Amino acid sequence: MTPPIHAVADQEGVDPVHLSRQITEGRVVILQRGDRAIGIGEGLRTKVNVNLGTSSVRISLEEEIQKARIAETYGADTISDLSMGGNITEIRQEILRHTTLPITTVPIYQTAVEVGLRTMRSEDLLATIRNQVNQGVSSLVIHCVNRPMLELLKEKKRLLGVVSKGGSITSAYMLLHQCENPFLEQFGELLCILKRHDIVLSLGNTARSGCILDEWDAVQEEELQLNVQLAHQAHQAGVQVIIEGGGGHIHYNRIAESMRRYKRASPFPLFVAGPLPIDVGLGYDHIAGCAGASAASAAGADYLCAITPSEHLGLPSIDHVREGLIAFRIAAHIGDLVKFGKDRADREMAIHRANVYREGQFRLAFDEARAREIAGKEEDCTMCGEYCAIKLMRDLL
Amino acid sequence: MTPPIHAVADQEGVDPVHLSRQITEGRVVILQRGDRAIGIGEGLRTKVNVNLGTSSVRISLEEEIQKARIAETYGADTISDLSMGGNITEIRQEILRHTTLPITTVPIYQTAVEVGLRTMRSEDLLATIRNQVNQGVSSLVIHCVNRPMLELLKEKKRLLGVVSKGGSITSAYMLLHQCENPFLEQFGELLCILKRHDIVLSLGNTARSGCILDEWDAVQEEELQLNVQLAHQAHQAGVQVIIEGGGGHIHYNRIAESMRRYKRASPFPLFVAGPLPIDVGLGYDHIAGCAGASAASAAGADYLCAITPSEHLGLPSIDHVREGLIAFRIAAHIGDLVKFGKDRADREMAIHRANVYREGQFRLAFDEARAREIAGKEEDCTMCGEYCAIKLMRDLL
Repeated sequence: MTPPIHAVADQEGVDPVHLSRQITEGRVVILQRGDRAIGIGEGLRTKVNVNLGTSSVRISLEEEIQKARIAETYGADTISDLSMGGNITEIRQEILRHTTLPITTVPIYQTAVEVGLRTMRSEDLLATIRNQVNQGVSSLVIHCVNRPMLELLKEKKRLLGVVSKGGSITSAYMLLHQCENPFLEQFGELLCILKRHDIVLSLGNTARSGCILDEWDAVQEEELQLNVQLAHQAHQAGVQVIIEGGGGHIHYNRIAESMRRYKRASPFPLFVAGPLPIDVGLGYDHIAGCAGASAASAAGADYLCAITPSEHLGLPSIDHVREGLIAFRIAAHIGDLVKFGKDRADREMAIHRANVYREGQFRLAFDEARAREIAGKEEDCTMCGEYCAIKLMRDLL
Repeated sequence: MTPPIHAVADQEGVDPVHLSRQITEGRVVILQRGDRAIGIGEGLRTKVNVNLGTSSVRISLEEEIQKARIAETYGADTISDLSMGGNITEIRQEILRHTTLPITTVPIYQTAVEVGLRTMRSEDLLATIRNQVNQGVSSLVIHCVNRPMLELLKEKKRLLGVVSKGGSITSAYMLLHQCENPFLEQFGELLCILKRHDIVLSLGNTARSGCILDEWDAVQEEELQLNVQLAHQAHQAGVQVIIEGGGGHIHYNRIAESMRRYKRASPFPLFVAGPLPIDVGLGYDHIAGCAGASAASAAGADYLCAITPSEHLGLPSIDHVREGLIAFRIAAHIGDLVKFGKDRADREMAIHRANVYREGQFRLAFDEARAREIAGKEEDCTMCGEYCAIKLMRDLL
C-alpha cells in the first residue's frame, strides 16, 4: 500500500485494497514520475499515450518541447519520446524538464543512432537502458521478435512485412549480426535493471499489421504467445509489465475479437497502437484511428497510442499532435462509457444542453478554446435560431 | 429495368436483375436527379449525406453554394438543403444549379418560415411539397410523430426531449393547433404526389436521443413501430421509402444492436444521423460521430448523415462541411470493408506503401490536397528517415 497506489485509487475512485491486489496479479501497472502516478489496466480509465520526438531528418528541440507541453495540456496520460535525431539525451532532458508526465522510450532507437546498427552490441543496448533509466524515464519498450518470427516474415506472405520501427530495427540487428534477439538473450539482466528502478516494461508489437491484408497472421500469433510468456517471466521477477498488441491495420469487425483474444491470453494491461480499420485514411488517420481505438477500448484495451493526421506522411507537427491526442481521448472516453456505463461529464453536458447553457458546455469540452472559436461571437447557437428544437419543446411540452 | 437501375448496377458492380428485385422488395431505393442515380440499401456501398442550408440567424447564399460544391467535390452522395433563412426557394435553386447531386428537403421548415408555425395549415404543407417537387428535389423528409409519442414526451422522462428540428417543429404544430400530425392525416395525398414524381420518402427520426441518458427509450420504440408501418404503406403505394432511425446519442456498445433491430423490423434502407457515442465531443463531434457511424455502417446502416465539428455549436462553415463529410466517408468505408470484406483502394494503398511510392498514396487519399500539404515539401517521409521500417526490412529480408 504505497503512496502511488493511494494516488491512483483516489484519481480513479477505486478501492486501494482492490487496486493493490490487481497490481499484485499483474492486471494493473503504475507508471511513476515524481509525484505523478498513472494507473493502467483493468477497472481503470482508458489511458492515452502521445508519441513525439525528432527523426533523423527532422530535428527541432523547440518543437518537441512544445509537443510535450501540448500533450500535457490536452490531457495525455503519458508521453513516448521516440527521438532519433539531434542530441537525443539533451532533447529528452528538456522534455522531462517541461512536463510532469511519465516518459517512455524505445532504447534501441538511441543505441542505433549513437552506436550504429552495424557496430552496436548488446552491451551498448544495456548501457543505453541504464542511461535512460538514470535520466528518469518511467517505462521502456522492448521488441522481442524471435528467430521463428523472422522465419515467418522471410516467407513473405505479408504485403508490408514489418511496419514497427522498433521491431524493424531489432529485426535488422538480428539479421545483420546473424544472432538471436539481444533483449531475449539478456532478458534476466534487463529485468534486474527494471526491477531495481521500478520501470514498467512494455513488450513491443513488432508484428502489427501494416495493411488490412496482413491482419492477424501467424507472425502476430507467434508474437502474442512469446510476449505472454515473457510478461509472466517479468511479472514473476517483480517487474511491472504491459503487452503491446492488436494494433496496426485490421478489419473493424475483428477488433473486438482481437482485443478479447489478448485479454484472455494474459492478465496484463493491453496497449494498442490504433488500430486502423482502413488503409486509405491518409491525412485523416487520427479519425480512422479513433474509430478503431473506440472499438478497441470498448472491448477491453487499457491504453491507447494516439495516431496523428501525419501518420504515413511525416513527423507530426505540434497541431497534429494535439489533433491526434484529442481524437484518441474521444476513443478512450467512448470505451470508458462502455466499461463504466456512465460518466459525470456526459450527464453534465446533457443538463447544460437542456438548459441551453453554452458556457457550461464550453467548459466541459476536450478543447475549450476550439469549441469557443467554432461557436463564434454570436451569443446563441446559429444552427437553428428561433427554431431551436430544445427551446421549442421546452416551452410547449 | 430502367436506365437508373442499370446506372446503379454499373456503379456498384452488382447484377441489375438482382438490384431490380431488391428495389421491388423495398430493400434498395434510387434517388434520381437528371442523369444522376444514387442507389441506397442492402448490398450497395454505404452512402453519405451532407446537410447544408441557411438558418434564420445566419444567411449567406454564397456560402451555401460553396458548401454544396465542396460536398460534391469531396464525394458526398446526396445533399440535404435545410435552409430556414433568406429566400429559401432561390437558395435551393442556386444549390441545384451548382451541383448534380440529388437534393433532399424537409418541407415543414420552409412552410414554418414562410407561413408561420401558428398560422400555417396542412394545405400549406402540401403546397410547399408541390413547389419543392416541381423545383427538382429528389427526396423529402417527413416527421411522423404521433399523439402517443407526444404523450410519452410529456411524461418528461427524457432529459433532452426532442432534438430533431423537423420533429420538434412538427410536434410544436400539433401542440399549438391541438391536432394530429398533418402528414399522417394526409398521408394518402402525400403518397400520391411522391409516387407521381418518383420522389423518395424519408421517414424522419423525431425521437433520436439528444444525450446518452435518453438512449433507446419508449418514444424511439413507438416511432420505430410507426415508421415501419408507414413505410410498408408507402411501399405498397409504389413510393420508394427510407427509414431514419438509430441516430442521436447512444452508448457505443448498443449501436450494432440498435441497427440490427431496425434492419430486422423492415426491409427498407436505414438512414442514420450520427450516432454519437458520447455527449462531450463538443468541437470534435465529427470524430465522435465517425466512431459511432463506423459501428452503425458495419452493423448494416445503409446511409449516413454527416456530422460536422460545428454540431451543438452553430451553423457549419464551408471547412466544417468538408471535415464532417470526410469523417463520415471514412465511417462509410470502414463499414464497407466489413460489408464487402475488401476494397481495391485499400489494397492499392498497401502496395504503394510496400513500394514506398508516395505519389500513388496521395492520389488514393480522400483529400489529396490535404495529404500533400501534411507531407510538406520533403521528397521522402520525415517520420523515420533512414530508419524507415519498410525500407530496412525490404533490404534485409
